[in-house]
Amino acid sequence: MQDILKGLRIVEGSAFIAAPMCGMTLAQLGADVIRFDNLTGGIDYRRWPVTKDNNSIYWADLNKGKRSFAVDLRSDRGRELVTALITADGDDAGIFSTNLPAKGWLSYESLTKHRKDLIQLAIIGDRHGGSALDYTVNAKVGYPDMTGPIDDSRPVNHVFPAWDNITAYMGALSILAAERHRRISGQGQKVELALADCALATMGHLGFIGDLTINNETRPRFGNDLYGALGRDFVSADGKRVMIIAVSAKQWTGLQAAGGFADEIRSLEDRLGLSLDTEGNKFTARGEIFEIIAKWTEATPYDVIERALIENGCCWGPYQTVRELLENDKDASDDNPIFSMVEQPDIGRYLVPGQPMTFSSTERRPAVPAPRLGQHTDEILGDVLGLSGGEIGRLHDDGVVGRPK
Amino acid sequence: MQDILKGLRIVEGSAFIAAPMCGMTLAQLGADVIRFDNLTGGIDYRRWPVTKDNNSIYWADLNKGKRSFAVDLRSDRGRELVTALITADGDDAGIFSTNLPAKGWLSYESLTKHRKDLIQLAIIGDRHGGSALDYTVNAKVGYPDMTGPIDDSRPVNHVFPAWDNITAYMGALSILAAERHRRISGQGQKVELALADCALATMGHLGFIGDLTINNETRPRFGNDLYGALGRDFVSADGKRVMIIAVSAKQWTGLQAAGGFADEIRSLEDRLGLSLDTEGNKFTARGEIFEIIAKWTEATPYDVIERALIENGCCWGPYQTVRELLENDKDASDDNPIFSMVEQPDIGRYLVPGQPMTFSSTERRPAVPAPRLGQHTDEILGDVLGLSGGEIGRLHDDGVVGRPK
Repeated sequence: MQDILKGLRIVEGSAFIAAPMCGMTLAQLGADVIRFDNLTGGIDYRRWPVTKDNNSIYWADLNKGKRSFAVDLRSDRGRELVTALITADGDDAGIFSTNLPAKGWLSYESLTKHRKDLIQLAIIGDRHGGSALDYTVNAKVGYPDMTGPIDDSRPVNHVFPAWDNITAYMGALSILAAERHRRISGQGQKVELALADCALATMGHLGFIGDLTINNETRPRFGNDLYGALGRDFVSADGKRVMIIAVSAKQWTGLQAAGGFADEIRSLEDRLGLSLDTEGNKFTARGEIFEIIAKWTEATPYDVIERALIENGCCWGPYQTVRELLENDKDASDDNPIFSMVEQPDIGRYLVPGQPMTFSSTERRPAVPAPRLGQHTDEILGDVLGLSGGEIGRLHDDGVVGRPK
Repeated sequence: MQDILKGLRIVEGSAFIAAPMCGMTLAQLGADVIRFDNLTGGIDYRRWPVTKDNNSIYWADLNKGKRSFAVDLRSDRGRELVTALITADGDDAGIFSTNLPAKGWLSYESLTKHRKDLIQLAIIGDRHGGSALDYTVNAKVGYPDMTGPIDDSRPVNHVFPAWDNITAYMGALSILAAERHRRISGQGQKVELALADCALATMGHLGFIGDLTINNETRPRFGNDLYGALGRDFVSADGKRVMIIAVSAKQWTGLQAAGGFADEIRSLEDRLGLSLDTEGNKFTARGEIFEIIAKWTEATPYDVIERALIENGCCWGPYQTVRELLENDKDASDDNPIFSMVEQPDIGRYLVPGQPMTFSSTERRPAVPAPRLGQHTDEILGDVLGLSGGEIGRLHDDGVVGRPK
């Protein structure tokens, strides 16, 4: 938790990854993010991984630090309450983030009847209003064709839901940009963001469209070779695997010193008639360079390789499983200030990250767990909507709102 | 181009992907992003892909819409000019984004002597001050172990530099958060962001740490199967491949209608004694469900599958190469408002994306090309630093600053 966005309030109606992660990011930066859900939870409330009691670790991790408002979204009274919450007064309020269908009572047109300067972020699948998920979008833009072993033509979807994550951060960025605009101009607005467009734009930003149009080049599979520079995975004498990269001059001389093969590289340059000081030439000659590096790593135990790479300021990383990461790597422990041990109600105690960026103006505090469903219903009805205890009691009696048993 | 951030000025000293992409994102949202470079360009100025004349398409795509200031960074006068640029007056100025070593004259401590309320974003490799790149970080956090075909144990690095991109958007988000804080409090600050921490935090946010700690579970390879829900790639009778996913109830009934196998699913539910209405149960029984879907796709031509999936509102996507994407997919053409044809000096004319989010308060205009190196040196010296024509001429004569020939 960091307080850099303290005061800002976002009301969120969300499911899956992108929209909840957008709000969780803002919540961990200090915003008051209120998530509303149906009385039994939304479509992703039991999403895997779950505990043996079917409580969702996934849901908890994507809703850390938010407040939870549980309400019957099919009832008129429930919809009135959510509308009032979204459009509540305050310079720092009136922001609605959603990937629910933003139509009918949740449409920008309906909501702005209650607050004219509303900011509404609508995260959608594709620009046509169709559904799209990380794995379908990834297939569409061409990465699975380029990912995976060279000797295997089957497409490989990357497991990391990168497009979801990117859409989440694009969404958070959009909210702050729109809020800045409102702070200056007084004007609210609707922001629309399609998951598919995040991936499509990225293909252009990373040079694939230009390379194809100008050079008529498409990128074949390079396995784990870095494109356009020098890098690949190597195996040590005792069977451990490391990714080794040399991009800067310092990394390149460091690597040659670590492996003691500077002379071999000089001979290779002479033989090829090519300076290996540029990224492009290193990539062109990578086959020969990789042979030299592999001869070293395959004859050397991992701990010797590790020490040599560290001592020479190389750019490298061991391959780790998630278990090895958690058990052996201090960066994934509370030695790293971004992590803290958190007791997550109904789930248990585990290591939880905050946001990776560190703001010098505000102290970093431990992460805050996700709420229980409806945990903040009563306080929100009271503090934000100004309802009396009696009115809140009647809403519970009528089954319009909910709180944990 | 969209003008939502119009007025904001960011000075950038950057290389590689994360830092330039951070600034490019803000530039395409209307900020005045000034990139400074040495007279012959930075370390990434010739990065692949390049044209046959060795002009970098990579560099162009990551610097779209910025202004370029070329200066001898080793000269005292050059350093003074960059310092003056970073710390120039103005409520909307005084923001410095960098992944250059932020020490000596570029340190926060030095720069704040000239402007106390400076905002400085320092993007670094890892929290220890070491270098880290997308491929090393990916190996470290465990994704290559989980990515790739089930029948092949070799680790697969995903080709998409996801951590670089995420660090870029985290950086842009940090700048807007810090600028909001300064607007309210008057206080500047330093923001530090490590690429490695972006990946480490993500492993927690996506449930891997909780699943291991609470359930003692790590995720094995599932190939292209979606984890915890229903989805996989399927091949049509004529050999085309599609990703098909069913998460929501609507997608699930739609898929059964598309393939005409609702009865088989009912029989399967009876046989297994399991309702296939929940994500978790679909994942558990995915082997049997995949057989039913594959029987349909493998006997059906692609165009029939495509029509059935569209008509029934399914969540799916074809696998495309980048060439197929560009040649056949209207979403990657100027039919999609996020794209426009742009003439990039020294490179050529190609389809260029803007930012994927659409702000209703500001019109979307075509993308702006990247500058030539030093293209805006003179106007920046005049307009931002207030130098006269004579002074600017002398800086050129002395070789302190540069502009395109």
